[in-house]
Amino acid sequence: MAAIDFFSDKLVVIGVGLIGGSVAAALRRAGRIGRVVGVGRGRANIALALERGVIDEASDDIAAAVAGADTVLLAVPVRQTDAVLAAIAPVLGPHALVTDAGSTKQDFVASIRRLLPEHLEYVVPGHPIAGAEQTGVEAATADLFQGRKVVLTPIPETAAASVDRVEAMWQACGARVLRMGPEHHDRVFSAVSHLPHMLAYSLVHMIATRPDAQELFDFAASGFRDFTRIAGSSPEMWRDIALANREALLADLDAYGMRLAQLSASLRASDGEALARLFETARDARNAWLRRGG
Amino acid sequence: MAAIDFFSDKLVVIGVGLIGGSVAAALRRAGRIGRVVGVGRGRANIALALERGVIDEASDDIAAAVAGADTVLLAVPVRQTDAVLAAIAPVLGPHALVTDAGSTKQDFVASIRRLLPEHLEYVVPGHPIAGAEQTGVEAATADLFQGRKVVLTPIPETAAASVDRVEAMWQACGARVLRMGPEHHDRVFSAVSHLPHMLAYSLVHMIATRPDAQELFDFAASGFRDFTRIAGSSPEMWRDIALANREALLADLDAYGMRLAQLSASLRASDGEALARLFETARDARNAWLRRGG
Repeated sequence: MAAIDFFSDKLVVIGVGLIGGSVAAALRRAGRIGRVVGVGRGRANIALALERGVIDEASDDIAAAVAGADTVLLAVPVRQTDAVLAAIAPVLGPHALVTDAGSTKQDFVASIRRLLPEHLEYVVPGHPIAGAEQTGVEAATADLFQGRKVVLTPIPETAAASVDRVEAMWQACGARVLRMGPEHHDRVFSAVSHLPHMLAYSLVHMIATRPDAQELFDFAASGFRDFTRIAGSSPEMWRDIALANREALLADLDAYGMRLAQLSASLRASDGEALARLFETARDARNAWLRRGG
Repeated sequence: MAAIDFFSDKLVVIGVGLIGGSVAAALRRAGRIGRVVGVGRGRANIALALERGVIDEASDDIAAAVAGADTVLLAVPVRQTDAVLAAIAPVLGPHALVTDAGSTKQDFVASIRRLLPEHLEYVVPGHPIAGAEQTGVEAATADLFQGRKVVLTPIPETAAASVDRVEAMWQACGARVLRMGPEHHDRVFSAVSHLPHMLAYSLVHMIATRPDAQELFDFAASGFRDFTRIAGSSPEMWRDIALANREALLADLDAYGMRLAQLSASLRASDGEALARLFETARDARNAWLRRGG
């Protein structure tokens, strides 16, 4: 547990979707908030958030909502980050904590340096590892982060007390909080998340654009379904993630391409031993990961 | 339904694992078999098959088992195919039906041409699309093929009546039977099954052999777990499948490598529109497939 407790008198959630809604619900259940103001994400969604008591108040006006807030959580698609930061910059209280929930962190850091340069002490970039499956406040739940990891990526300017508070906030939601640098974060998630998405999208795209696509899909089975599940994710969100993490992802795509070329070379040479060794190393590593709870 | 019914007085199942055991169990339940003799696959497994009544009799001696059989099902790892065919060739009754359950078909066709050249009229290559998850007769069930697809890949020498009988056998197990040429079969399954396995194994291998493997696995989440599930499959089996379907798989690996290179080029150029279009085409195609029951 963090040495400090988290309590917010006025929490503003910008983007009351699955993540934003679940944070509000979890903090309310934990008794860690006074009032929650929700901003944006569509009229029906906000109405539902009010009806369910996820938020106490709704607002279309970011500036008005943020006035007087001690904590601001950005849970919007990352392409909206700059617009939101620009809108809150003039009205943010001098000690208001700002944090986010984006999947890439170097781009968020670049945005805060550009748009909140005087406020960096109070900005804590964050990434909860949860909730890729569903969207919208209707899927929000106070349990979403229970036992999940949240990565915080403070920069040198971030005050230690700010990181501690955001850590305490996530712990109050039931999450395990880890810290690392933004660049380190983006390299890790390029390998274990962004690259797999590119690979799954590419496979489905290749099959879908073949003249015999219909027949191929007819014979695709459960292995294919699981392998490509992540290709059902939002194209806009993944375009943004790919662009935001371009350098690390390009490096991983290159490295992966070389691995595939090696596999092809083994296969071309009918080197069964090399193939079996590769498959076995992979299977054993995956099984070991599963045993550790992966 | 096939125009004819299937009934076997003496069915020999060579390899009483998940597939062989499930065929025997399904045919027994459907009242389509007199006696089942099971061959091989380990003492404990065979004992369990006897105990559960999946088979009536066990044998270590393929030749003795096959004598007098009207139907022989090979359900062994494909690397054992040649040894099994060589063992049954001298004792096979002149009209005994022979079929198999291997994941690749051109290699099986090459084997029967080499080892059963006088018997081709009665040999029906087959591939049930089921049961990659578990192994052994303990997982066998009469329901395994219910609603699943089975592909038969007759060659010009195969008698129509033989194909009809094997089709009727699988229909009695509850399966939907389709027919195509062996080369066509192998091309289809290269794209929707063999290639994805190579991609999943390669990704896990790449991560497992990085110096920061431990940390990467620590942050891998449910998307990674599903994407790599097929990398938990048997290395020996997949070595054999890759080698057996070498040409089609090499072509697909090349084509996929080019797709990845195109994606990298779009990303390098920060061409968000091209990326979003690719992701969207893939997502829409996958969703359409799911709606059709994929």
